Amino acid sequence: MMAHMADKQHMEHIRHSLAHLLAAAVLELWPETKPTIGPAIENGFYYDFEFASPISDKDFPKIEQKMRELLKTWKSFEKIDVTPEEAKEKFKNNPYKLELIDEIVGKGEKVTLYKSGEFTDLCRGGHVENPSKDISSNAFKLDRIAGAYWRGSEKNKMLTRIYGLAFESKEELEGYIKMQEEAEKRDHRKLGKDLGLFVFSDIVGKGLPLWTEKGATIRRELERFIVDEEIKRGYKHVYTPDIAKIDLYKKSGHYPYYKDSMYAPIKVDEEEFMLRPMTCPHHFELYLSQPRSYRELPMRIAELAKLYRYEQSGELTGLIRVRSFCLADAHIIAKDPEQAADEVHKALDLIEYIAQTFGLKMGEHYWYQLSLGDRTNPDKYFKNDAAWDEAENRLREVLQKRNAHFVEAPAEAAFYGPKIDIQMKNVRGKDDTAFTVQYDFVMPERFNLTYTDKDGLEKQPIVIHRSSIGAIERVIAFLIEHYAGNFPLWLAPVQVKVLSVRDTHNEFAQKVVETLRKASIRVEFDGNDEGLGKKVRAAKVEKVPYWLVIGDKEVEANKVTLESRDHGQLGQISTEELLSKLQEEIKNKK
Amino acid sequence: MMAHMADKQHMEHIRHSLAHLLAAAVLELWPETKPTIGPAIENGFYYDFEFASPISDKDFPKIEQKMRELLKTWKSFEKIDVTPEEAKEKFKNNPYKLELIDEIVGKGEKVTLYKSGEFTDLCRGGHVENPSKDISSNAFKLDRIAGAYWRGSEKNKMLTRIYGLAFESKEELEGYIKMQEEAEKRDHRKLGKDLGLFVFSDIVGKGLPLWTEKGATIRRELERFIVDEEIKRGYKHVYTPDIAKIDLYKKSGHYPYYKDSMYAPIKVDEEEFMLRPMTCPHHFELYLSQPRSYRELPMRIAELAKLYRYEQSGELTGLIRVRSFCLADAHIIAKDPEQAADEVHKALDLIEYIAQTFGLKMGEHYWYQLSLGDRTNPDKYFKNDAAWDEAENRLREVLQKRNAHFVEAPAEAAFYGPKIDIQMKNVRGKDDTAFTVQYDFVMPERFNLTYTDKDGLEKQPIVIHRSSIGAIERVIAFLIEHYAGNFPLWLAPVQVKVLSVRDTHNEFAQKVVETLRKASIRVEFDGNDEGLGKKVRAAKVEKVPYWLVIGDKEVEANKVTLESRDHGQLGQISTEELLSKLQEEIKNKK
Repeated sequence: MMAHMADKQHMEHIRHSLAHLLAAAVLELWPETKPTIGPAIENGFYYDFEFASPISDKDFPKIEQKMRELLKTWKSFEKIDVTPEEAKEKFKNNPYKLELIDEIVGKGEKVTLYKSGEFTDLCRGGHVENPSKDISSNAFKLDRIAGAYWRGSEKNKMLTRIYGLAFESKEELEGYIKMQEEAEKRDHRKLGKDLGLFVFSDIVGKGLPLWTEKGATIRRELERFIVDEEIKRGYKHVYTPDIAKIDLYKKSGHYPYYKDSMYAPIKVDEEEFMLRPMTCPHHFELYLSQPRSYRELPMRIAELAKLYRYEQSGELTGLIRVRSFCLADAHIIAKDPEQAADEVHKALDLIEYIAQTFGLKMGEHYWYQLSLGDRTNPDKYFKNDAAWDEAENRLREVLQKRNAHFVEAPAEAAFYGPKIDIQMKNVRGKDDTAFTVQYDFVMPERFNLTYTDKDGLEKQPIVIHRSSIGAIERVIAFLIEHYAGNFPLWLAPVQVKVLSVRDTHNEFAQKVVETLRKASIRVEFDGNDEGLGKKVRAAKVEKVPYWLVIGDKEVEANKVTLESRDHGQLGQISTEELLSKLQEEIKNKK
Repeated sequence: MMAHMADKQHMEHIRHSLAHLLAAAVLELWPETKPTIGPAIENGFYYDFEFASPISDKDFPKIEQKMRELLKTWKSFEKIDVTPEEAKEKFKNNPYKLELIDEIVGKGEKVTLYKSGEFTDLCRGGHVENPSKDISSNAFKLDRIAGAYWRGSEKNKMLTRIYGLAFESKEELEGYIKMQEEAEKRDHRKLGKDLGLFVFSDIVGKGLPLWTEKGATIRRELERFIVDEEIKRGYKHVYTPDIAKIDLYKKSGHYPYYKDSMYAPIKVDEEEFMLRPMTCPHHFELYLSQPRSYRELPMRIAELAKLYRYEQSGELTGLIRVRSFCLADAHIIAKDPEQAADEVHKALDLIEYIAQTFGLKMGEHYWYQLSLGDRTNPDKYFKNDAAWDEAENRLREVLQKRNAHFVEAPAEAAFYGPKIDIQMKNVRGKDDTAFTVQYDFVMPERFNLTYTDKDGLEKQPIVIHRSSIGAIERVIAFLIEHYAGNFPLWLAPVQVKVLSVRDTHNEFAQKVVETLRKASIRVEFDGNDEGLGKKVRAAKVEKVPYWLVIGDKEVEANKVTLESRDHGQLGQISTEELLSKLQEEIKNKK
């Protein structure tokens, strides 16, 4: 872990040093330019400049060449302590640097400059010792150019930001670029459009996807899979309203604390309604609709719940960040911590089963994070040390017992208890919390959830909040990218295309189509008079798992020629054989 | 038709005469009482009184007896014309009658009294000629007692209203009472509670049902049935957002005209969002997301769409009138009137197929109403006489061609075109429009929906708005009452209960439960130590379609004893036979 931290710092030093190098090269090429700030960032660095005249990414080769030239001459970073006056004198023509100097002085900090080669910059430090040795000249690359307001405020001047990529080795740089290119091809927004899965409409609203027939098919198959699997595992699937009186969220404590991401209240008559931001209080009201006995516990209340959270329009991204989403949600009411731990086990079993269905491997595609509370911060974490200890130990034991891949994260819990975050790596190589399993010892008290125990006493249960797969929109975005649009048969919007060689084969082809359709196979018929080659290309572009070619030979043999998107030519086969092959594959979700 | 009108008037005269008789009887028994008004109503009559001391329905036999006594002596109704002063003198101790007299005078009408036997009342008339002959003494009955404000205003005094039932014959009265009793037993609110299908929560809000596991199971089965059947018939099932910017409803023209039944706008940042009151503009936006060709038409865009309409709290009734409902909705974009008519045919095919699945017969349980426009009222009906003629003729032809049971209703169309209303009779004997198939030649223009025709020209399509089953909430209310809670196997929340005779049989019973569960049968195990009789009674009360008894004999024979809710004892059967019997029945939706 320590080695990893050191590596990470070293990489940051390389990237920050390269920001200096970029500024030096730019000033050599365009001496009129005013440099401002240039930090290390994930995968590289950037520098913001005020250019005298515009540049473009066409200038990158020239800048990179200059950077490599200078790099050879940069043997060290020399730290120079200066008085504020000396610094101001040096940067007297650069109002940005003057503003920064004032700020440093205002904070009571020392003003320092760093010099490497002939280039000196106002800087707090954090560089490699010897750039010419420590930085590979083929492990960095200028990436793109963008506008950026000085200090991020649109009231200020727009500057030109140059982004660079930087890694330790050429291989790492190339690997990263390749991954980005691949990610771009797989981008769910691009594929969603190319494959016609969903659209947006300005007049409907940003962040509110409209699912076409094809996208809706994927969604429906996925939703039914989740619901059926949960029911098999003893979940009670319910429907509760997507709106409720504001009073419900006041009772739960979500309002006004959660107010910023909730839609504004809907006032009608004397009442105010809210679009629900979460499902818990709705499920608690169902639990409260009659007295409960220990015999009914654990009670697993599940729902495909539409939730509404208002995201800033700048935050909206395809299906990943939307303003309304459908969460595969559940609340498990457990008798006591032991039963709760047992239910967490079962929830993780389900999560791992679903992940496996999509070919996701623990440790590679996903892992767990045990997010803990902080006993010293009662503002952020409900004060009950004994309950925190018990809950954290239970969750840790669960993860240890199953030999799960997990890391611990201090002070990352929810207000009401510790949680297990399901961490996923997306095609861009980014980690993200996909969804969570949360242990809650606070809401039962707030909602006065109780049950009558074996001994006749009324007791308070524990609540587990969990998702089995997260938000449907996000999962589909993830799956589009994961499969690069090549959905497995059970999820594919069109499962089979039937292609006739000439229109004399259409009659036989139509019969095959009907047979498949009656068996609930999603089949399309391409009987256009366009030539087989064009039809096959169309099927491939649409990423259809199978297509059937029907010509003279097939009509004669009363068979079809089967071709697979993933396995190529599969030869002649009877309709019956084909049907049972398809049904088997759909059933097995392969 | 004329005979029917005369019958109806005669019945009203009987009922109004009985209101007089009720007042006469009450005044004989409690001379201090102040009578106010007493009209004929559907199925009977009422009279509002100010009693000196409270009465209850325990007094009904006494009142009825007095009514029958008096009836014998009532040979006529004598009309007496009086001056306002004479009338006021007669009713000087009754402030209600005095107020009525002033009102009659204020309108410039004549004041008339009607006398029968010894009883005289202020009245406009409308009685039978000879009560003792024209009214059967065993064809009326006092029904219930209720509070009612004088003139319906809560600012006035609360009076006592006595309701009576009245028909022409004893048989009709008894038939009506029986139907009411049956309807009460079948009332979906009562059965919904008894069978644990849904609940309401004050803090969530009125008119917003929460579906329990059992109710949700019925709903899910129903929804999947509809969606799958529609997909089989070429519908494209989509998902579109339940909210949209207000601009969308301004474009469609729903806002502000539909404003009263819409929820108030949700203002966030600079935008206003609405909970959608209908699906059409959402589907039109999907249609508009790319250029369309005649080859794509008819395009049948379908959705299980959550809709929001704000009903007055006094209007809310169980699942029948709710504030959010889920409509099995679709919009069919058709090339031209001919294709549109063809699609209406297909929509009615689907409706009739679904009705048949529930054992509903056309002409008995449901029929059609062809709702026409009114060429003379361009405020209410879009002005385009030729389009109205064409559309109405097409719909009439469709109904005639299929020999459908239908009536025509002038001036009942939608603004944008004629429609076919699906009329249903509920268990209370009331008719109601369940849902509609609408022909629309206005919205395509408003939304600028177009397609490129074979000839390369851009043309405007016709839209058919239709539901296949109506709002899911309402359908389920209807089905609960239709089946009296005895759901067919495919819809039953619990399909099979397994009952062990003693706990020594539990192990074998559990194995049977597991086998059924793995085959996706919804099975419950009753292994409580309570005696078989009690377990069987519980299964019957819960209206479970099948239960299995497992005792010594069954364990020995490796079989189960099957009993059916609808067909009684079915004898011993192996688990495999049972499973295939159940699966067959589920598949056939019997």
